[in-house]
Amino acid sequence: MTVAETGVAAPPAHAVEAAARRAMDQKTKPHGSLGVLEALAVRLAILQGTVAPEVERGRIVVFAADHGVAAEGVSAYPQVVTGEMVRNFARGGAAVNVLAGAAGLQVEVVDAGVAADLDGVAGIVHASVRRGTRNLAAEPAMTADEVDAAIEAGRAAARRAAADGVRAIGLGEMGIANTTSAAALLSALTGAAPELTVGRGTGVDDDGVLRKRGVVARALALHADALADPRSALAVLGGLEIAAIAGAALEAPRHGIAVVADGFISTVGVLAAVRMDPSIEPALFFAHRSAERGHGLALEALGGRPLLDLDLRLGEGTGAALAIPLLRAAARVLREMATFDEAGVSGAEP
Amino acid sequence: MTVAETGVAAPPAHAVEAAARRAMDQKTKPHGSLGVLEALAVRLAILQGTVAPEVERGRIVVFAADHGVAAEGVSAYPQVVTGEMVRNFARGGAAVNVLAGAAGLQVEVVDAGVAADLDGVAGIVHASVRRGTRNLAAEPAMTADEVDAAIEAGRAAARRAAADGVRAIGLGEMGIANTTSAAALLSALTGAAPELTVGRGTGVDDDGVLRKRGVVARALALHADALADPRSALAVLGGLEIAAIAGAALEAPRHGIAVVADGFISTVGVLAAVRMDPSIEPALFFAHRSAERGHGLALEALGGRPLLDLDLRLGEGTGAALAIPLLRAAARVLREMATFDEAGVSGAEP
Repeated sequence: MTVAETGVAAPPAHAVEAAARRAMDQKTKPHGSLGVLEALAVRLAILQGTVAPEVERGRIVVFAADHGVAAEGVSAYPQVVTGEMVRNFARGGAAVNVLAGAAGLQVEVVDAGVAADLDGVAGIVHASVRRGTRNLAAEPAMTADEVDAAIEAGRAAARRAAADGVRAIGLGEMGIANTTSAAALLSALTGAAPELTVGRGTGVDDDGVLRKRGVVARALALHADALADPRSALAVLGGLEIAAIAGAALEAPRHGIAVVADGFISTVGVLAAVRMDPSIEPALFFAHRSAERGHGLALEALGGRPLLDLDLRLGEGTGAALAIPLLRAAARVLREMATFDEAGVSGAEP
Repeated sequence: MTVAETGVAAPPAHAVEAAARRAMDQKTKPHGSLGVLEALAVRLAILQGTVAPEVERGRIVVFAADHGVAAEGVSAYPQVVTGEMVRNFARGGAAVNVLAGAAGLQVEVVDAGVAADLDGVAGIVHASVRRGTRNLAAEPAMTADEVDAAIEAGRAAARRAAADGVRAIGLGEMGIANTTSAAALLSALTGAAPELTVGRGTGVDDDGVLRKRGVVARALALHADALADPRSALAVLGGLEIAAIAGAALEAPRHGIAVVADGFISTVGVLAAVRMDPSIEPALFFAHRSAERGHGLALEALGGRPLLDLDLRLGEGTGAALAIPLLRAAARVLREMATFDEAGVSGAEP
């Protein structure tokens, strides 16, 4: 049960932090020798309000939705693949299922707005706001009400996770053409030119990249008046799954849940969330450095150091599935390792 | 059962490689989008001689031994810590126990030559060659017979792993003063100056680093005639645990077991093994880039790309415990993911 749920006042973060650092330095190892793991453990301690944090239960949520901008020919795959992949997730055949299974993590698939009839599909959460966004290169992708509904779908996923005792949530996505939407949103949120935010996505060729850049440039010009406010930028350029990711990132920290951003699209969704509510920052973790152009820029905008660098560029939450075990391991160091006293091990010589 | 054990001729490596690549490209994801994981999976397929490799059972072997060179004041910790830590490993209280446990890996602790009476200690493999090496700055650390015995202790650990169905073995170590021994050996094997191979180890100060460099330089001069041959260099400069690591790295590939080098000392042991038998190279994996100076040089000498970069500098096999799950996940991708045909997912547009 989390602090938010119990209503019990949390110990002050600085007190937990000091206690966690002290506990870490009494473990049978030279100070600092577990590097990033030690920092992760202390951050988890602060987030959970205890010097004995745990990340035994983790979950990847895959938010899926379609994009009107797919009509511009910006993806190597046809739009129908989004719905086909949702069925693949539901049956457990996709990469994220396999990697989450290997890591002992749950997978939840949320239809936030796929342009297909998934009503009868078992094993997914039906939270479709509409069957795909409008074409962001021609009109606003979402209305204000639609983006709010998609954000709420993400918040609901975070609340389900909290109710199930999940301690870390990996934010995955599926949506044909969503690198175009994410690139446009990243340009809007950072001011970076499309040359820096548009990449190959699932594998378009050089012509495809040029086409994507043109689409993004056009969209940024068309919606220029709506880009100063992050929620409004998310509405006109984003995707329903990207807004849901933002919603999950906004809600999960309220329950002491670590938010693990995955690749490019996921990180841009998290960036939009931070722009709406900077107070979530202490709960954010970054799974990996994606091979997709623009991810480095998104990470930089968030000041995030990714845990892994394995040239992944798949999305779905696959990087988060590989990274959450590092959070789990870090928490276990603080909970389970013996101290010098307990183990009868001599300390460093004076 | 491995190919070596069954005596059945393995399919040619190039045929397995081609079949594994083909299988990987039929999985429901853009080609290459799982980056390093795809390369790992193909390498494991070749190593195991099957397009359906698995790394469900993994083991960290912690080889422990003491070093006569500790008398030169090269460590921040007293020599007694080696034996104390072996007891800590046996009781499950050390970092490697916790991280291996989190990853579902076994831990085996081998006394290859600790300078303490561990005869009555349960839960460790008693394979002590002698109670610590001689001081390498004054005389050869080991005789030819002793280094052979230590290598054999490592080979025996790899055979035990094979008998138990282990598919990946992480090579860990514990030994006060062993960064000095490893630095000297790395200088001998690569020709690099002590300035490039000597670091802070468990945390010596600037004076300590200068003292370590001086010790290494003295040892390299003293044993100059013995350094051309890798086994001889290992004998005069190495440690009993480092020789055991080399032995395990020499033996494990014969059983189709992936060899996962850990940090600085472990990687130098593996480098010594490769210099004795370059044919083991396809079985080698590198867990992480350690914060210890000299590790980058050792990785470079082996042409290895580490899987993780988390500023670890503890040893014990802690990095390997974090990395073996990546091998397991990679193998599962090849074994478990659905193909486009199986999942009814459309491929890329022409």
